[in-house]
Amino acid sequence: MNAQVWPKNIGFVGLGTMGGAVARRLASGPWTILVHDIVPAAVDRMIEHGAVGAPDSAGVFKGSQVVFTCLPTPELVEAFWTEHYGRLDQGAIAVDLSTIDPATSRRVCDLVEGRTGASFVACTLGKTPAMAEAGEIPVFVGGNAAAVERLKPLLDHMASVTYEMGSVEGATMFKLISNLIGMTNLAVLAEGYLLARQAGIDSKTFAAALRTTGGWSTQADIRLAWMMEEDFKPRFAVDLAAKDLRLSVNAAAAWGVPTPVAAAGLSVFSLARAAGWGGKDAAAIIAPLKPRG
Amino acid sequence: MNAQVWPKNIGFVGLGTMGGAVARRLASGPWTILVHDIVPAAVDRMIEHGAVGAPDSAGVFKGSQVVFTCLPTPELVEAFWTEHYGRLDQGAIAVDLSTIDPATSRRVCDLVEGRTGASFVACTLGKTPAMAEAGEIPVFVGGNAAAVERLKPLLDHMASVTYEMGSVEGATMFKLISNLIGMTNLAVLAEGYLLARQAGIDSKTFAAALRTTGGWSTQADIRLAWMMEEDFKPRFAVDLAAKDLRLSVNAAAAWGVPTPVAAAGLSVFSLARAAGWGGKDAAAIIAPLKPRG
Repeated sequence: MNAQVWPKNIGFVGLGTMGGAVARRLASGPWTILVHDIVPAAVDRMIEHGAVGAPDSAGVFKGSQVVFTCLPTPELVEAFWTEHYGRLDQGAIAVDLSTIDPATSRRVCDLVEGRTGASFVACTLGKTPAMAEAGEIPVFVGGNAAAVERLKPLLDHMASVTYEMGSVEGATMFKLISNLIGMTNLAVLAEGYLLARQAGIDSKTFAAALRTTGGWSTQADIRLAWMMEEDFKPRFAVDLAAKDLRLSVNAAAAWGVPTPVAAAGLSVFSLARAAGWGGKDAAAIIAPLKPRG
Repeated sequence: MNAQVWPKNIGFVGLGTMGGAVARRLASGPWTILVHDIVPAAVDRMIEHGAVGAPDSAGVFKGSQVVFTCLPTPELVEAFWTEHYGRLDQGAIAVDLSTIDPATSRRVCDLVEGRTGASFVACTLGKTPAMAEAGEIPVFVGGNAAAVERLKPLLDHMASVTYEMGSVEGATMFKLISNLIGMTNLAVLAEGYLLARQAGIDSKTFAAALRTTGGWSTQADIRLAWMMEEDFKPRFAVDLAAKDLRLSVNAAAAWGVPTPVAAAGLSVFSLARAAGWGGKDAAAIIAPLKPRG
């Protein structure tokens, strides 16, 4: 095989909101992409974008030098690779794009690299599906250096910038940390905004003034207006935020890192789920905190 | 008196880090400024900037149409105005610049406006002493509309932008809220950074990558590098942050607004004080959280 055309074929499993966007981006590259998802419509949509639909999960391995997974939970990632690791070709690379915990990522890596001649790389994803589809996301990659180097043509096509996190744990943990910080920033923003309302401060003035202070954040930029307008259609749902906070607070506890503030953030997301807001945007965490009457 | 030269004389008490900077800025305006502080050197420094030193607190009222206070605690603000409110001229305006709680601000306002023909305005301050000295800070003002309007020449000289918060409670609470959010964002940033270290992520890579995510904030912009370098010389001290979190969490509890995340933030600052970091920069909250060995 000519080095310039590596990889010739890639596989991709998990065509959800973010996975589908990355897969569509990859479908515009100089390789053949074999895809599968448990939702047939997601596969059909990919076929319109030039992908080849595989009849089942096993089918995406056929002739693939790189196989991607982008699945919603650590349990699904581990179950997938435990069932399918033996299908990886000698020298192939398994790339997991999922937001999962570092311990699971390590177990799957050890399984793949210990029992096959293939490599396992964790590559978590920043920003939004729209930016992923345009190839304009940052990615956070970790795994053995040779495999990461060989993935360069794919990473350069998927992402505008690649950060090397040093290990699979580093890559998975970084994504969790960014959500741990962001979602906890969002929770305290909700508390502060409710206090401002209680103090009779005009909402637009609050937003404009807060921007000039040390209380501003990317989450305020993204979600303060949605909180004010009670626009809770899901971009990143309470359920997903709660999952990421749970995984990161659990990992921190296992590693002996104290996270009292993030643990309180997790509690607020649990409260929002208990109150029925799990499927709504993370901005909806303000709803159960609001004083009534 | 000609309206164009109002105010002719102003008084200013409390020449600390922020108060001194604002007073120096005011000393460059077209009015005479009478100043006092319990620290004689602070008064001497102001005299070099063109101010007139008053022999005592009472002295700053002499002929002043506006008297400013910028004091470190609500107790000191209330004690000052309880002692001196009777010295305010008919039609004068008391302006408190201190970061205090809304209940104290309301009591002092009611005292001044109920017992004299003067007005009381709360005007909290954004940004840094250096920016205050240059007249480039935002200010957050509240009180009776006529008094706020009359203060315009002074506010325009002090600040690059004035946000009207609707009431003295709004002005004091806004400042507390901005610190409540900012300092809690800082606490969870410390937790996240310690997790990244534990995951073996390179610190510079962590900072660059986090900036591309929803976990970024103004506090990360200001203090992440100081945390990494363990540069804890005080710009805004742990003790002051703990005071502001305490005042805002207390006000929230009194008003029935739940603040579980900010309360956890307060705990982390209390922990840092207990561990002896009270006089260091707020970035030092990372110190007692760090796993040893």
